[in-house]
Amino acid sequence: MSGSSLKNSIGLVSPQTVVMREPLTLACGIMLSSHTLVFETYGQLNADNSNAILICHALSGSHHAAGFHEGDSSPGWWDSYIGPGKAIDSSRFFIVSLNNIGSCFGSSGPTSINPDTGEVWGASFPSLRARDWVESQRLLMEHLGIEVWAAVIGGSLGGMQAMRWSLEHPEKLLNAVVIASAMKLSAQNIAFNEIARRAIKSDPDYCDGDYLQQEKAPLHGLALARMLGHVTYLSDELMGQKFGRELRSGTFSTEKTQPIEFQIESYLNYQGDKFSDSFDANSYILITKMLDYFDLARQYQGNPVKAFGHAQCKFLVISFSSDWRFAPSRSREIVHALISAGKDVSYAAIESDMGHDAFLLPNNRYEDALASYLSRVADGLDASIQAEGDQT
Amino acid sequence: MSGSSLKNSIGLVSPQTVVMREPLTLACGIMLSSHTLVFETYGQLNADNSNAILICHALSGSHHAAGFHEGDSSPGWWDSYIGPGKAIDSSRFFIVSLNNIGSCFGSSGPTSINPDTGEVWGASFPSLRARDWVESQRLLMEHLGIEVWAAVIGGSLGGMQAMRWSLEHPEKLLNAVVIASAMKLSAQNIAFNEIARRAIKSDPDYCDGDYLQQEKAPLHGLALARMLGHVTYLSDELMGQKFGRELRSGTFSTEKTQPIEFQIESYLNYQGDKFSDSFDANSYILITKMLDYFDLARQYQGNPVKAFGHAQCKFLVISFSSDWRFAPSRSREIVHALISAGKDVSYAAIESDMGHDAFLLPNNRYEDALASYLSRVADGLDASIQAEGDQT
Repeated sequence: MSGSSLKNSIGLVSPQTVVMREPLTLACGIMLSSHTLVFETYGQLNADNSNAILICHALSGSHHAAGFHEGDSSPGWWDSYIGPGKAIDSSRFFIVSLNNIGSCFGSSGPTSINPDTGEVWGASFPSLRARDWVESQRLLMEHLGIEVWAAVIGGSLGGMQAMRWSLEHPEKLLNAVVIASAMKLSAQNIAFNEIARRAIKSDPDYCDGDYLQQEKAPLHGLALARMLGHVTYLSDELMGQKFGRELRSGTFSTEKTQPIEFQIESYLNYQGDKFSDSFDANSYILITKMLDYFDLARQYQGNPVKAFGHAQCKFLVISFSSDWRFAPSRSREIVHALISAGKDVSYAAIESDMGHDAFLLPNNRYEDALASYLSRVADGLDASIQAEGDQT
Repeated sequence: MSGSSLKNSIGLVSPQTVVMREPLTLACGIMLSSHTLVFETYGQLNADNSNAILICHALSGSHHAAGFHEGDSSPGWWDSYIGPGKAIDSSRFFIVSLNNIGSCFGSSGPTSINPDTGEVWGASFPSLRARDWVESQRLLMEHLGIEVWAAVIGGSLGGMQAMRWSLEHPEKLLNAVVIASAMKLSAQNIAFNEIARRAIKSDPDYCDGDYLQQEKAPLHGLALARMLGHVTYLSDELMGQKFGRELRSGTFSTEKTQPIEFQIESYLNYQGDKFSDSFDANSYILITKMLDYFDLARQYQGNPVKAFGHAQCKFLVISFSSDWRFAPSRSREIVHALISAGKDVSYAAIESDMGHDAFLLPNNRYEDALASYLSRVADGLDASIQAEGDQT
């Protein structure tokens, strides 16, 4: 299979907006009387509405997973894997990608207006769980006239949504693709998230969460949070290869007091600043808390085998060797629980030195694993349509 | 060998202060016309001044390595390993532990007065390298009338000083004990340090480093830096065992909006706040930069074998299995370079789930390795004195 660079792009795409008028009661008990979702679709829904795939984004993702927005020079965040002839093939599937509530790219969240008060939500946007995203996605599913997802796919927090779908609405998906994910965060995972949140909250421009109302933004705190996240997304090996101990400025040899700066420092500071200009601090706090709270088996007496006993779909689990945020061992826990629960599971342990970020980046083995699995899914749908056609 | 808890403590100790009047030209080219060192000693110097051991502290350490200060309920930072009958045996060795320049426990550094200006140094304290600490330690050595260290011992940055001693003054030490250390930092190590520095610098109370002059302190930034450091000192396993996903407040089951806080969050916030009350932010920046800059073989064409070719002492290298800040592989690099350079090296790879912090914590295997090595050193000194006695 050739690299994704040889394949066609989706081309220009336009986001759509829908206001969900049906009340959504969140896990925390608060009800959203209505909520807005921004989403994109790629490919065509087939005659029996059976070829729909849901893409679930992670912490900082958006609805813009593939193709180009008018005037943009770079494509959506998962363009390497979504498109005609790509692993998630838009010539065979109808692919739905939304911005989830609580995020900051147009769907209801801390930067949007609370319809009940007319004020911006800010830090008062309610606490969320992954299941709330699933429920909101289910409303979008109804809106689009889809009864069953051919697959629900996501990496990291996206994989958690795919797993939650399999337990909450087992009859509404045929396949769950769980990439670089975990059934729950470790203490270390939570620790990094907490430091990121404290970085944001101790920025004086955070204003106890009311920065939008005061026309400020905790840019320094959010940049720090992102820098820290970034280090945990990359592998030690990759950082060594990419930056090593190369200097950006200064020198060790001159006996001068000029500042010495390593390339990795400059890179991280750039990444932090770029992110803080494009993401919302309250959303970052809210979604990292979602990650911390996620515990697949909590309501199943902490037993993941019991949890997955409720699933009816097939599973593809994918991990990356150098991912230390959600290490391969965390994926193997998922696989073992699925096997013990008697489920149909495929597991692809991909060699990669790209760390957790590997799930977003081009990788032929990963592409092959995803493409061949989903190709079988598409073949199954075609056969099923064929069979129905034969009967009528 | 029994655990250290069964052994005797040094008891009450008092720090001493000495002003070094000899100018010290730093690696950056700046000259300190004089500098102050605070130090403690444990045990007695023998007749021929041959039983002295130098203890080198790491990032946040001080001269107070063992025993108790008047009124203190907790002992020095390495009390588990220093004392009569302990691994670093004060009944056989004369143990010298100093606060290095640039730190903040009484020796010249950002919180002390620049004698040339009469003003507090603050952020203007010159940039330091590990070799500057070694030179300052050499002045203390002369002051104490010591010609050769029986051993120079340190963990982490302390181990870097021990290695630097072996190259800069090969004739002045018989043994170097290098614990949980590395020949240079990786890009990931530097990345974490840079995030910590940026956390401090983006605290408005940092005042571009002039916070002391303005009677402020970047407590939030320094706390963040420490929280981050702390996560990298602990292993994922240990954090899992110690905290897991236990909650400190709130509950997942009540459908209430009360905040949910994990134990690990509370613990880290406590550690961060405690540290920022006792350490200086400019010192933290200065010493993390020292760590980043350290590169054992830089002036030896980047060849550690060539570097260690200059050493004359014996080496003990110790690593800890769960240390991911300076992983065992980093210690093995040291060992391999020493072997290739034809040096006498012992290596103890200790099993521990305590992460990088293991070098500070009780561990029988570690204690045995250190004690048996140093016991042979002491035996050698005794035999040498005996032989001299026989000759006269």
